[in-house]
Amino acid sequence: MTTVKATNVTWHEGSVSRQEREQLLNQKGVTVWMTGLSASGKSTIACILEQMLLHRKKHAYRLDGDNIRMGLNKNLAFSAEDRAENIRRIGEVAKLFTDAGVIAITSFISPYKKDRDAVRANMKPGEFVEVYVKVSLEAAEKRDPKGLYKKARAGQIKGFTGIDDPYEAPENPEMVIDTETMQPHEAAAQILAYLEKGGYLAA
Amino acid sequence: MTTVKATNVTWHEGSVSRQEREQLLNQKGVTVWMTGLSASGKSTIACILEQMLLHRKKHAYRLDGDNIRMGLNKNLAFSAEDRAENIRRIGEVAKLFTDAGVIAITSFISPYKKDRDAVRANMKPGEFVEVYVKVSLEAAEKRDPKGLYKKARAGQIKGFTGIDDPYEAPENPEMVIDTETMQPHEAAAQILAYLEKGGYLAA
Repeated sequence: MTTVKATNVTWHEGSVSRQEREQLLNQKGVTVWMTGLSASGKSTIACILEQMLLHRKKHAYRLDGDNIRMGLNKNLAFSAEDRAENIRRIGEVAKLFTDAGVIAITSFISPYKKDRDAVRANMKPGEFVEVYVKVSLEAAEKRDPKGLYKKARAGQIKGFTGIDDPYEAPENPEMVIDTETMQPHEAAAQILAYLEKGGYLAA
Repeated sequence: MTTVKATNVTWHEGSVSRQEREQLLNQKGVTVWMTGLSASGKSTIACILEQMLLHRKKHAYRLDGDNIRMGLNKNLAFSAEDRAENIRRIGEVAKLFTDAGVIAITSFISPYKKDRDAVRANMKPGEFVEVYVKVSLEAAEKRDPKGLYKKARAGQIKGFTGIDDPYEAPENPEMVIDTETMQPHEAAAQILAYLEKGGYLAA
């Protein structure tokens, strides 16, 4: 271990600690993991939560299909193995952002309990906040903003969650948001309140 | 597009922009990609740079073997294909951190020009700052802090960069740091100066 002095500050070998990053940002690193059927409202809520956090001067970053499927996970398809690897990699990236002190918000269907539980097990207690964005299949199918349920029903998409592939609801999520009875901005406000109460919005 | 009003703030569908994140942090997202032989000094310089950035109240995060090899890339081995995939994934994660507005510092040998150039091509101009941490093989082998060169020479490690696997030096890196003539804190200060001059330390 060597230390050197430059401009009155001592630089040492070894990392900046997570705590130092969190103090800089005045927040705690955490992963808000949203899970739910397609059209449940995950992305809408995630976007509003992100805005609310920015408004509170908190540093959040969303991981979603747009920035993951075309990038890190572009070499994965939809086999059972690839789906598991998809969630595993997202979990690892969320863990890195959490370690960086960022509030990572993920919005993926993430239908399998086993895959989500593996992400949770890979993080420290309190770092993984699972938010079940709940909607009935009927309501989701009625919304169908991208026409995906229609295509799945017509057999044009195979292995679609809720139609010909299962969605395994979380058994003990930190939060349940029922989007048939709650508006997106109310849902986001509720998650924000959870983060505030849990001490995540201060270092 | 729906907008809702809550507590005098309008929340809209759609993301927080990168610019908004950068303004919050008062910095610009960028990837400082350090490449060089084992024992060239990459990690030491990266750690000091990270401290200097924290001292300037800038949010940086290091990606290195410790947090990548045991996590995101733990299912990769050392075949040519896996080495390329290793760097590809690191590049994708660095891109996400850059998009998040963070100063990502990577310290991996990343010996192949093709792999590094693919990471660069995947980012926008100015987002990828390649720092060639230069050292002669002789000097690196003399340092050998982990005894890896010794093991490679003894044939106990196969495909070791510089011994029985090539290191392809960058042709046009943004910076060259010769660690045979420059101390780690001087090298870090030089990278910091580059970032400052390039406008990365303000939004």
